[in-house]
Amino acid sequence: MAAAEASRTSEARRDAVFGRWVVFSPARSRRPTDLKSHNPTNPSPGPGADAPPKPSCPFCAGRESECAPQIFRVPPDGSLPWRIRVIQNLYPALRRDVDPPPVPEAEGDVSSDEPGERAVPGFGFHDVVIETPRHDVRLWDLDAEGVRDVLLAYAERVRQLGEHPAVQYVQVFKNHGASAGASMAHSHSQMLGTPFVPPSVTTRLNCMKEIFDRSGNCSLCEIRPKDILISETPNFSAIVPFAASYPFEIWIIPRQHISYFHEIDQDKALDLGSLLKTMLQKLSKQLNDPPFNFMVHSAPFKISSSCLPYTHWFLQIVPQLSVVGGFELGSGCYINPVFPEDAAKILRELDCS
Amino acid sequence: MAAAEASRTSEARRDAVFGRWVVFSPARSRRPTDLKSHNPTNPSPGPGADAPPKPSCPFCAGRESECAPQIFRVPPDGSLPWRIRVIQNLYPALRRDVDPPPVPEAEGDVSSDEPGERAVPGFGFHDVVIETPRHDVRLWDLDAEGVRDVLLAYAERVRQLGEHPAVQYVQVFKNHGASAGASMAHSHSQMLGTPFVPPSVTTRLNCMKEIFDRSGNCSLCEIRPKDILISETPNFSAIVPFAASYPFEIWIIPRQHISYFHEIDQDKALDLGSLLKTMLQKLSKQLNDPPFNFMVHSAPFKISSSCLPYTHWFLQIVPQLSVVGGFELGSGCYINPVFPEDAAKILRELDCS
Ligand SMILES: Nc1ncnc2c1ncn2[C@@H]1O[C@H](COP(=O)(O)OP(=O)(O)O[C@H]2O[C@H](CO)[C@@H](O)[C@H](O)[C@H]2O)[C@@H](O)[C@H]1O
Ligand SMILES: Nc1ncnc2c1ncn2[C@@H]1O[C@H](COP(=O)(O)OP(=O)(O)O[C@H]2O[C@H](CO)[C@@H](O)[C@H](O)[C@H]2O)[C@@H](O)[C@H]1O
Repeated sequence: MAAAEASRTSEARRDAVFGRWVVFSPARSRRPTDLKSHNPTNPSPGPGADAPPKPSCPFCAGRESECAPQIFRVPPDGSLPWRIRVIQNLYPALRRDVDPPPVPEAEGDVSSDEPGERAVPGFGFHDVVIETPRHDVRLWDLDAEGVRDVLLAYAERVRQLGEHPAVQYVQVFKNHGASAGASMAHSHSQMLGTPFVPPSVTTRLNCMKEIFDRSGNCSLCEIRPKDILISETPNFSAIVPFAASYPFEIWIIPRQHISYFHEIDQDKALDLGSLLKTMLQKLSKQLNDPPFNFMVHSAPFKISSSCLPYTHWFLQIVPQLSVVGGFELGSGCYINPVFPEDAAKILRELDCS
Repeated sequence: MAAAEASRTSEARRDAVFGRWVVFSPARSRRPTDLKSHNPTNPSPGPGADAPPKPSCPFCAGRESECAPQIFRVPPDGSLPWRIRVIQNLYPALRRDVDPPPVPEAEGDVSSDEPGERAVPGFGFHDVVIETPRHDVRLWDLDAEGVRDVLLAYAERVRQLGEHPAVQYVQVFKNHGASAGASMAHSHSQMLGTPFVPPSVTTRLNCMKEIFDRSGNCSLCEIRPKDILISETPNFSAIVPFAASYPFEIWIIPRQHISYFHEIDQDKALDLGSLLKTMLQKLSKQLNDPPFNFMVHSAPFKISSSCLPYTHWFLQIVPQLSVVGGFELGSGCYINPVFPEDAAKILRELDCS
């Protein structure tokens, strides 16, 4: 990347989804360090070919009794071995067994949303999706149908949670590798159903609304990928976003305007499964199996239909290549040493077949 | 903490400064891990009694020529040895030598602030404050006068940067330890002068404005510390905020309503220096010299005087005890296993004399 780096000077960019400023500074990647514990290319100690199955892993086939209760499994037929299990989190951040906060009486009733300090009981749902019975298989080792089924399991569980009157949002996410926060190596993802709309979701909706009000357009429909495109399928585009907060960050965006992830059907889930698999393979190959997170960004359940024209779901993948510092924590502004166009070119040209 | 933990169930809280929801879940701290690389009590490999001076550290006395240009030093008189140096960052994220973006013509001129994608040249200032000539001295090893002088150096440089018409905000911050992002072990802090108002600052001002518009009060003046108080001085309160995002997070807040950090005078800086020193000592003792960040949250330079009644500067200290995961990245909502009241009690009762 030396050539690309030399040809670029710093730039600050703001995105049209979260309204965040990001500073692009290739020079930053040349700074020295005398503190060695964070190595950008450190492979994560997640599962994979080299990781021996852990004899005591509760997510492995045969140890189901060591897990919190199961919600459903794939395939549902108990006479066949399971391929995916959706279970309760044994150490939930939010609990399904406490009283939910009162539900706002009517749409537009903001009484419960007065600003200021507020405390509510820790009601909510915290589930784990075990993506495979095998300890040595990573999500992108599954075939496209296998990844599709994981995505369909997310969607099914989000739909179930959406039926609870007090659940406002479900955050679906995956942690892979210790530096991405994972405490369990066995391939899994999680979701939290919250009794409030989380802060980033509010910020995103406000930003997209402001743009829609001025331009009549949805920010994500408006993206013209060109030089930030990595790959396209009939239903999805994978891009490095124009103002990516993190080096090699990827967004997978439905090409059609769709507000809710959980409305995905079998065909689109297969298309997405195949693209997600390819993107994870590319990151793994290019960045030496980096720790990463992915997050589904969807619309809150209880929004009025007037919000639908500017809400558009997408999946964000963030490889964790460095540690953020006080500048990011304080300002919410990120410093990214890799320009999106350069990252997209590298990922686009990388052959994973 | 077993007793405190047993007596509490999960709770979600929203704060009155950033409007962020935080989930408090003591049960989370009991979850097992088979990925060992992040250890909450891992001491950071920062400087200190055990760290041998690095022969090649450019921040050490005698190696000034290996640094980017100096801006000023303390004491100014060059015949005396320096105690503090404010220098340019050799690998700046933003550069002082490129054309600044056009300055909005008049207050209230939002033309440059239309929402949506935007790119501007990477203009700005990125400076380093070397807090001591000695490699083996940490900020809280200085006496209160020494910490005061570091704070006054921040304030002086912020004032200088505020005179540039294109600088909208200065983020002052410190990284200590590799897991807090530090690349240099020698005790230092940094500041970035940006040509835009950073995202978290906008969020904070919007949240505090909304509360002010409804209640007529500043959110920070309104805080009644009681059980979240750690310590109080004539001019400052140190608290664990009601909805702390991180375990053992500390806010040091001026007891008087003051918008701008950089207006601090000698006396108040000494008072703050002494309190900051004590808080860093307490964190170091209680958490085994954890990696941490601190950030000054002040008001943007170019705001109208009508904003001053609800802007109130403060200093936030965040020990980095765990890695955040996809839930936090996606939702902006944090999971904190330690209730603020419990953290405050521990820090309040800890004797560092
Ligand atoms: N036998 C069992 N049955 C059912 N569930 C079991 C179980 N044993 C363990 N679990 C659960 O499995 C989950 C594994 O999750 P991850 O490895 O993705 O990260 P974790 O949630 O620990 O924390 C990371 O993600 C969260 C959310 O982003 C961050 O708050 C945190 O800092 C970061 O380390 C844990 O939540 C754990 O409670
Ligand atoms: N000889 C010299 N003269 C002048 N300056 C010199 C120098 N040698 C090194 N420097 C500068 O000194 C600074 C030391 O800063 P820190 O150790 O606090 O963290 P750093 O900025 O590297 O990154 C951390 O903080 C930033 C901002 O929060 C995050 O973006 C990042 O991910 C995180 O690792 C570096 O910025 C470096 O460029």
